[in-house]
Amino acid sequence: MNLSKSEIERVRRRIAPNIRNTPLLTCLYFDEMVGGDIIFKCENFQKTGSFKIRGASNAVSKLQQSANNALFTAHSSGNHGQALAAAARRVNAEAIIVMPQNAPRVKVEAVKHYGGQVVMCKANLEEREKTCKTVMKETGAVFIPPYDSIDIIEGQSTCAAELLQEEKNFDYILTPVGGGGLLSGSVLAAKALHPSTTVIGCEPAGADDAYQSMKMKKRIPQKSPKTVADGLRTSLGKHNFRVLIENNTQILTVSETEILDALRQVYERMKIVIEPSCAVPVAVLLKYKELFAGKKTGVILSGGNVDLQVFFNDLDKKITA
Amino acid sequence: MNLSKSEIERVRRRIAPNIRNTPLLTCLYFDEMVGGDIIFKCENFQKTGSFKIRGASNAVSKLQQSANNALFTAHSSGNHGQALAAAARRVNAEAIIVMPQNAPRVKVEAVKHYGGQVVMCKANLEEREKTCKTVMKETGAVFIPPYDSIDIIEGQSTCAAELLQEEKNFDYILTPVGGGGLLSGSVLAAKALHPSTTVIGCEPAGADDAYQSMKMKKRIPQKSPKTVADGLRTSLGKHNFRVLIENNTQILTVSETEILDALRQVYERMKIVIEPSCAVPVAVLLKYKELFAGKKTGVILSGGNVDLQVFFNDLDKKITA
Repeated sequence: MNLSKSEIERVRRRIAPNIRNTPLLTCLYFDEMVGGDIIFKCENFQKTGSFKIRGASNAVSKLQQSANNALFTAHSSGNHGQALAAAARRVNAEAIIVMPQNAPRVKVEAVKHYGGQVVMCKANLEEREKTCKTVMKETGAVFIPPYDSIDIIEGQSTCAAELLQEEKNFDYILTPVGGGGLLSGSVLAAKALHPSTTVIGCEPAGADDAYQSMKMKKRIPQKSPKTVADGLRTSLGKHNFRVLIENNTQILTVSETEILDALRQVYERMKIVIEPSCAVPVAVLLKYKELFAGKKTGVILSGGNVDLQVFFNDLDKKITA
Repeated sequence: MNLSKSEIERVRRRIAPNIRNTPLLTCLYFDEMVGGDIIFKCENFQKTGSFKIRGASNAVSKLQQSANNALFTAHSSGNHGQALAAAARRVNAEAIIVMPQNAPRVKVEAVKHYGGQVVMCKANLEEREKTCKTVMKETGAVFIPPYDSIDIIEGQSTCAAELLQEEKNFDYILTPVGGGGLLSGSVLAAKALHPSTTVIGCEPAGADDAYQSMKMKKRIPQKSPKTVADGLRTSLGKHNFRVLIENNTQILTVSETEILDALRQVYERMKIVIEPSCAVPVAVLLKYKELFAGKKTGVILSGGNVDLQVFFNDLDKKITA
C-alpha cells in the first residue's frame, strides 16, 4: 500500500472542517536531555483530544458520500469512540458507541457530549464485539474500525503530513504503536512527502506485539498486555502490519518505569496534559538518546484523554477536610 | 503609584532575556460557556512555570545594577523561590531560598535545578522569616520580597502589557489575587496602555482578605486561610493594596467547589497543566458569566507548578501491581 502526495492532499481537504492543524511545541529541557532538535506535534490539543478524529472523519466522510449512510457504530473504551461520535455529527449522521462498563466517567461523558449514543457492555473484547454486532443487526449501523482499515490509515497519515509540511528535514518521526493506525499512516506520509525521514514505532515492552511481529515477520496477536499505556494494548491490524513490513519499519520498546518517567517529565516541564500512551515515544526518545543526538526528531503526542480523577479526588478531600 | 507606558517598556526590555512572551490560547468550550470572547494568557508556560520570574528578574536586575549585589534570598514554598533562583543565575548571582519542610519534592528540586541553594525550616511563617533573617545576617544576602515591592509590581505589570499589546480592546482582564503583585501590576498596565479595560481580582472565598480589605478600605490581614489555591493564602501587601485602593479595583470571590470545578474543566478541555490558584479567575469567569457575556475578556493563567504526585503514584501502583 502507498499514498501519493496528491492522495494525502485530498484526504486533508476532506477532513479539514473536522480537525485542527495542531500546534508544534519545542522544549529546551528535552533538547538538552537528548542533545538534538526535538519538535512535538500536539495531537493532545486535537478536537476530541486525540488524533483519532482524523481517521474517523475520513472513513465517515467517504462512506457518507458513497452510500449516504446515516448511522455508524464502533466499540471503544477510549479515543476512537469520541472521534467517531464527533465525526458522525459533522456530517449530520449518528453514532452508537459500545463501551465497556469500566470505561472512565470522563470518556463516557465525552462521547455523549459529542452527540454519540452510548451502549454499555461487559468489559471484555468478546462482549464488545458481540454487542457491536447486535447493534449493527438491529439498527443497520455501519461499523467503523479503529485502525485496521485503509480509510483510517489514510486519515491518520495527515498528522505526519502536517508536521512534514510545517517543519523541514526531519531525520526521525516517533509515534506510538497500538493497532498501528497512526504509525502506518505516518510511514506512508513520510514515504510520500519526505522519504529520507525515518519513522519509528514506539511500543511498551509489556504489549510488544508489533515488535514481535516485525521480528518474526508475521502478525503475532497481543496476549494479556501489561501496560499503563491503555491506548496501546490492542493487537496490530492486518493492513497496518502490511505497511510496516513493506517499509521495514523499526519498532523500539520501553519499560513501564521508563514510560511513567517520561510522562512525569512532560507534565512537569511542558505543562501539558498527555495520556500515558503518548509518553511512550517520549520514553523512546530519552532511552535511545544517542540515536537522536545531533538529529532533528518529530515526536507525535497522540492524545490528552487521561483520567485525572485520582488527582481531583485528592484535592476534593482537601477542601472538605 | 503609576507606571507610564515608557516605564513599562523599560521594564520589559530589562527582563526580556529572562522571560518568555507566553502564548495566548482560546478554547471554544469556554467561549460557549460564557457567551463571550475569552483569551487565556498562559503563564503556566512561562520560564520557571509561573509569572513570578517577571518580578524577580526586575528586582534582581535593578539591585544588581545599582550595587553589584551577588547574593539574594527569599522564603518561599513555591513559585517565588524558583523564580528568584533562576533570575539570580541569569545575572551570575546566587540565591538562597528558605523553604518549609513540607514543601513538595517537585518544588524543592526545581529551586535546585535553577541553581538555588535550599535552606529548610519549620513550616510556619515565623520560622520562615526568622530563618531568612539569619541567612541575611550570616551571608549578607539581599532580601527579595515576593510581592510587596515596587520592583516586583513593575515586573508583574509586563504580563498584562504583553496581553494588551498582542490583542486589542479587552473589556476585562481577570487575575488571581494573593499578595497582590500580579493584580496591582495588571491594574497599572491597563491604566497606562488601555484605560478602558477593567482589571478584576479573583480570590478564593476561603482566603478573601483582598475582598475584605477593599470593602473596609483598610488592609485586613489574612487569618487561617482555607483554600486549595495554595498560591493565594498570603495577605495582600501594603504597596499592592495602595494600588488597588487608588484604582478602586473590584474583587470577586469563588468557593472551593467552584475553583475545583474550573480546574477540572481546564485540564479536561484545554489539556494544559495549571496550578489550583490559576483556576480561580476561570471560576470567576464561569460564576459571573453574565458579566462577561458579549465581552472580550483576558484571563491570566498564572502558573503551572502543581504537585501531581498522587496521580503519578496511582499509575505507579498500577505498573507494579
